[in-house]
Amino acid sequence: MANIFLTPKYICMGEGALGMSKNHMKKLGTKALIVTDPSMIKLNNVRKLTDVLDEIEIDYEIFSDVNCEPTNHMVDAGLTLYRSTGCNFLVGIGGGSPLDTMKAIGAVVGNGGDICEYMGRELTNPMPPNVCIPTTAGTGTEASKASVITNTKSNVKMLLNDPNLMTDLAIVDPEFTLTAPPSVTAATGIDALTHAIEAYISKKSFLLSDTYAVSAIKRIFSNLYEVYINGQNIHARNQMAVASLEAGISFTNSSVTLVHGMSRPIGALFHIPHGLSNAMLLCKCLEFVTPCVVDRLSNLAREIGVYQVGMSDMEAARAFVEEAKKLCKKLNIQTLAEYGIDRNEFFSAIDKMATDALASGSPGNTRIPPTKEDLIGIYKSLWE
Amino acid sequence: MANIFLTPKYICMGEGALGMSKNHMKKLGTKALIVTDPSMIKLNNVRKLTDVLDEIEIDYEIFSDVNCEPTNHMVDAGLTLYRSTGCNFLVGIGGGSPLDTMKAIGAVVGNGGDICEYMGRELTNPMPPNVCIPTTAGTGTEASKASVITNTKSNVKMLLNDPNLMTDLAIVDPEFTLTAPPSVTAATGIDALTHAIEAYISKKSFLLSDTYAVSAIKRIFSNLYEVYINGQNIHARNQMAVASLEAGISFTNSSVTLVHGMSRPIGALFHIPHGLSNAMLLCKCLEFVTPCVVDRLSNLAREIGVYQVGMSDMEAARAFVEEAKKLCKKLNIQTLAEYGIDRNEFFSAIDKMATDALASGSPGNTRIPPTKEDLIGIYKSLWE
Repeated sequence: MANIFLTPKYICMGEGALGMSKNHMKKLGTKALIVTDPSMIKLNNVRKLTDVLDEIEIDYEIFSDVNCEPTNHMVDAGLTLYRSTGCNFLVGIGGGSPLDTMKAIGAVVGNGGDICEYMGRELTNPMPPNVCIPTTAGTGTEASKASVITNTKSNVKMLLNDPNLMTDLAIVDPEFTLTAPPSVTAATGIDALTHAIEAYISKKSFLLSDTYAVSAIKRIFSNLYEVYINGQNIHARNQMAVASLEAGISFTNSSVTLVHGMSRPIGALFHIPHGLSNAMLLCKCLEFVTPCVVDRLSNLAREIGVYQVGMSDMEAARAFVEEAKKLCKKLNIQTLAEYGIDRNEFFSAIDKMATDALASGSPGNTRIPPTKEDLIGIYKSLWE
Repeated sequence: MANIFLTPKYICMGEGALGMSKNHMKKLGTKALIVTDPSMIKLNNVRKLTDVLDEIEIDYEIFSDVNCEPTNHMVDAGLTLYRSTGCNFLVGIGGGSPLDTMKAIGAVVGNGGDICEYMGRELTNPMPPNVCIPTTAGTGTEASKASVITNTKSNVKMLLNDPNLMTDLAIVDPEFTLTAPPSVTAATGIDALTHAIEAYISKKSFLLSDTYAVSAIKRIFSNLYEVYINGQNIHARNQMAVASLEAGISFTNSSVTLVHGMSRPIGALFHIPHGLSNAMLLCKCLEFVTPCVVDRLSNLAREIGVYQVGMSDMEAARAFVEEAKKLCKKLNIQTLAEYGIDRNEFFSAIDKMATDALASGSPGNTRIPPTKEDLIGIYKSLWE
């Protein structure tokens, strides 16, 4: 069995990565469209980028009208600015949404037409030269070949997934993550953990996706609680930034499974941020899949150091799941009730969510694919 | 501290990887120059490649005049064939030498002039589209940004080292390694182990080069002896092929250190194959550097499972080195004497070799850089 393994060709990582990328960015073009959101401007992150572009005498335009749910309108507006001002490369800076928007703009620059026609489409041409600068340690978008854009005409979240959406240059600088508050640090960190665990237990996992997944999982268990309680620890922030990148590379080459499949419908109907809904689901889903991935979870128990001599594989697998539960608890991951979701409203949506989750295909990547009834049971268990 | 991390953007890996790469190869061009050596033709490896190219209707020329020490003449001859027959992309298939030659041809296609002017030069332009297909699990050339070409005018081994020499597509198919005899399997496997250990203990190592180095080291300790005694075990061959790739990625981003620095002069003067001279040096060099990398080697002891509860870090580090020694012994790595080197001749060359090794810069990447006297001592210890 063979597999394609795809990564950004250049990754610049560590403290000072933005500054170190100057020479490489110079080669990408003469005028950049910076795709971002208002908070990145407020937090001075865009300023750090434009200071560097000014220094290397690269011209730019800033498009900051992205919010947490990128739409075709945002893509169209960014595209118009790109074309009307003579830009010839793209820089996305922010969480997952600005980076997704940047990729969607790039896809249309390279392939023409209307972004609303892009769902499931194979891209013939590459994006123009482009850069991804993540500012949270979680989404892994800087290392994925995907972009999710809401089509406001059909009210559908379109998944674009093509090797041409893998960036040329990922700049992973932990300094950008220092401004994330504890709750965002926790949810995005568990999102990264979810990517890595799902990539590792997916039926599509393989040797090199495993290398990244295991490394990310070890870094997260060693550093996530530390950055939650001590957000200024740049060393631990760097470990988390690398973990998020590794987790992104692992899931984009392997796949996500049950958690992501079940998380998207919660996000679509109840507007809970993606990282948080993943975090709410992670442990219940792990408990459900344990019997079919005992070998994998027991390996992870060994890797994170919770295996004890004499444990059976099943005991080790359960020890790993317990450790994940403990971490979520220490990070004060909210329950649905704590987030303010109405129990009755949630229960009446469960049937639709289970259907939508299965239809997305992700649960089918679980080693023993779950039934709709299984999913209904897990959704209900979130209220236990 | 920031670092650039560079990999082939596409890696196709696992059994059947060659066949799986068809769609991607189709996009690279219409006519390939295949760069290889006579043994690859004899072993039918080139035939496997041309069968695939025939199937996808890609035209090709074959340049097979590469031997184990590529020279400017070989590069010139390949270049002439490329240009005169209208090729527009390159495929290197074989061990390190054909892949190095392919990259050198690509460098001149992209940047013009004479290969003899390329030592230490920064490349302005990329190579044409290109593919690396390794047939040994050892050199990691498919994942490096380097090429070594002997300049016959000056009798110097020119090192070309530039991000533009990183391939677009690495096809890592373990089926090609099945034909390697045990002695080659052992020497190239220890070469890969050397890459990974040196990358991990180098002062230029960083988080992501460590991820690859540790993964490679674990795979090699678990699989190298198995492929040595049972060359047809495709599962273990696949593990070694991935380990070699991982080791290549780790050292090309971090660096090699003492072993490679000391190995090249032995190769230049006594014409011992690169993998074997590395293998001869590995354990003596590790013993020498242990005091300055106790933390790193003790980590490796934990990773490969030879750490025992109660060991000090120094004891753990030594346990790792002992395990490497045991592996070399089981693989019957020849000594200089067993290879047929004359002791007196070797001793009279030691002063020059120590000077050349230091001048190469690699020993300077050791965490405490060794002196010339240190190197002389290690060279002498190879006869103990």
